[in-house]
Amino acid sequence: MNDRIARTLRNEPTDRPPVWFMRQAGRYLPEYREVRKRATFLDLCHNPDLALEVTLQPIDRFGLDAAIVFSDILVVLEAMGRTVTFEGGGGPKVDPVRTSADVHALLRPDVNQALPWAAETIRRFRAARPDVPILGFAGAPFTLLCYLIEGSGSREWTVAKRFLWQEPALATKVLDLLADIVGDLLEAQGQAGAAAVQMFDTWAGALTPEDYVRFALPAATRAFARVKSAPRIYYTKDSAPFLDHLKSTGADCIGLDWRVELGAARKRLGDIPVQGNMDPALLYAPPDEIRRRVRGILDAGGGRGHVFNLGHGIQPDAPITGVEAMVDEVKKWSARS
Amino acid sequence: MNDRIARTLRNEPTDRPPVWFMRQAGRYLPEYREVRKRATFLDLCHNPDLALEVTLQPIDRFGLDAAIVFSDILVVLEAMGRTVTFEGGGGPKVDPVRTSADVHALLRPDVNQALPWAAETIRRFRAARPDVPILGFAGAPFTLLCYLIEGSGSREWTVAKRFLWQEPALATKVLDLLADIVGDLLEAQGQAGAAAVQMFDTWAGALTPEDYVRFALPAATRAFARVKSAPRIYYTKDSAPFLDHLKSTGADCIGLDWRVELGAARKRLGDIPVQGNMDPALLYAPPDEIRRRVRGILDAGGGRGHVFNLGHGIQPDAPITGVEAMVDEVKKWSARS
Repeated sequence: MNDRIARTLRNEPTDRPPVWFMRQAGRYLPEYREVRKRATFLDLCHNPDLALEVTLQPIDRFGLDAAIVFSDILVVLEAMGRTVTFEGGGGPKVDPVRTSADVHALLRPDVNQALPWAAETIRRFRAARPDVPILGFAGAPFTLLCYLIEGSGSREWTVAKRFLWQEPALATKVLDLLADIVGDLLEAQGQAGAAAVQMFDTWAGALTPEDYVRFALPAATRAFARVKSAPRIYYTKDSAPFLDHLKSTGADCIGLDWRVELGAARKRLGDIPVQGNMDPALLYAPPDEIRRRVRGILDAGGGRGHVFNLGHGIQPDAPITGVEAMVDEVKKWSARS
Repeated sequence: MNDRIARTLRNEPTDRPPVWFMRQAGRYLPEYREVRKRATFLDLCHNPDLALEVTLQPIDRFGLDAAIVFSDILVVLEAMGRTVTFEGGGGPKVDPVRTSADVHALLRPDVNQALPWAAETIRRFRAARPDVPILGFAGAPFTLLCYLIEGSGSREWTVAKRFLWQEPALATKVLDLLADIVGDLLEAQGQAGAAAVQMFDTWAGALTPEDYVRFALPAATRAFARVKSAPRIYYTKDSAPFLDHLKSTGADCIGLDWRVELGAARKRLGDIPVQGNMDPALLYAPPDEIRRRVRGILDAGGGRGHVFNLGHGIQPDAPITGVEAMVDEVKKWSARS
């Protein structure tokens, strides 16, 4: 078993930093687009055979140091009784929660019953590729609340934020419920054999620091407290505003976006392992520039306690030649003494 | 003449912090929507009579401490020879620059000839309301380059960033050209009587710190170097990643977004006056919550060298009752000793 990820998350030395990247099983891959010709996005989330197939694709193509199970953060909202649709363009749509009655109608599913797919895909992956670690994941409670209240993606998340301020007790109730489900879902993936689990708090960066500390942070912390069986990675797309708070989620590793310099962020964060943080748009840059940036990030990471990754998910039209240059440059890196 | 803004930008004491807010002359006002029934958005930018009318609206309604001239950052791109359209939904569209030939075809307008409207509106405002200061503004070079290359708004600005990396020399040429025009435009507004001028680097936050320092920062600095006649405010919608760099633009005041705690940001920035930084979404919160947040920001500002503002432009459907609560609470504030 490739143990670079496991060792890195324990801050132990490795021959080089491990590399995987967010949304690595996705639309930028022609083989993924082939599978999508015969299955919808939700089919992939709900069918471990298909999920395994696409989970393996970037592993087989690039020889990455970890797989990440194919799923979507919004399946949790389905299991809570809301309709989620991915087709039709403009991003996912959720039948939104707006009233107290809507909140009280939310289900508290048993994740093993209602959300079995990710754990099952992890078990199958472990059987198929015992040499490669696989990561589990879930959306963080606040980020899920954003979609649940707003009903779709948003630049400003005004409806979701208004709900926090107009109904703080109700919002906290929803966040606690989400945290318990998310925590159970991450733990189920850990028990199924995930080498680590990542929580995506993608939209926490919409909040003021006061609201982050009041709403998003306690909910993320509550979710992580339920996870005992695997190391926990906490990612937010806006790391810089919250650097001083991220560790208090209880995370074992902090996933950084590209708008922070990794070395400076480590100084602020202290001893905890970090993950990141190349700008996904750099994959469109000339290969020499990609390689130069990869080296800069690896140097800043210092070759220990650093999982190389993008700072956000890869974009659907990212060029594969860019990915190849990035991965190759990480693999070439060797610690300098 | 109300001198709260002028004194605050010199770090001198005032009876209370001044208050104005970004996009204060805009669609959330019914009287603005009335004007828009008889004129397009670009009509307002190109006609000082109409621009004056809407510039005055929030002053007359709320008694703010400063007006900001009605205009749009994209008129600069029109004057450089590109077609800009605001109608049709989905945000503004610009006939994009993609090739070296496109770049070389860009015009270097004399701003007094090609962009006379903002300065003229400022002169008329000064005659109409000599008691109220008025601010000028322009888009920062990098933010204008984003629209010029991408051709529209974007969440990721992938096309614009790719241009930086694939054609860095050409990109720098465009940024220099933009900086000179923007600097002249700001200076013209200062000479027309603006009490201060603000540069909006709204999308700088898409960049890594390395790219910010390489591209956006030198261009903003170059633009500000041309401005002698009025204090200069530099705003970016993502302050946290770049706090250590913002002062080196040469700004006299730093405009902060809502994802930083104003007191903590001041500690990092040092002695320079700041502006901001209430989350625009808070205008949808209950009035008591708005007032509590306003007081928190004013307390963090310490009553000196702080211009109260939102952390980003007001949204088109923001409730006027929220604005009233915000402005009233600022006016109630008095320095505590």
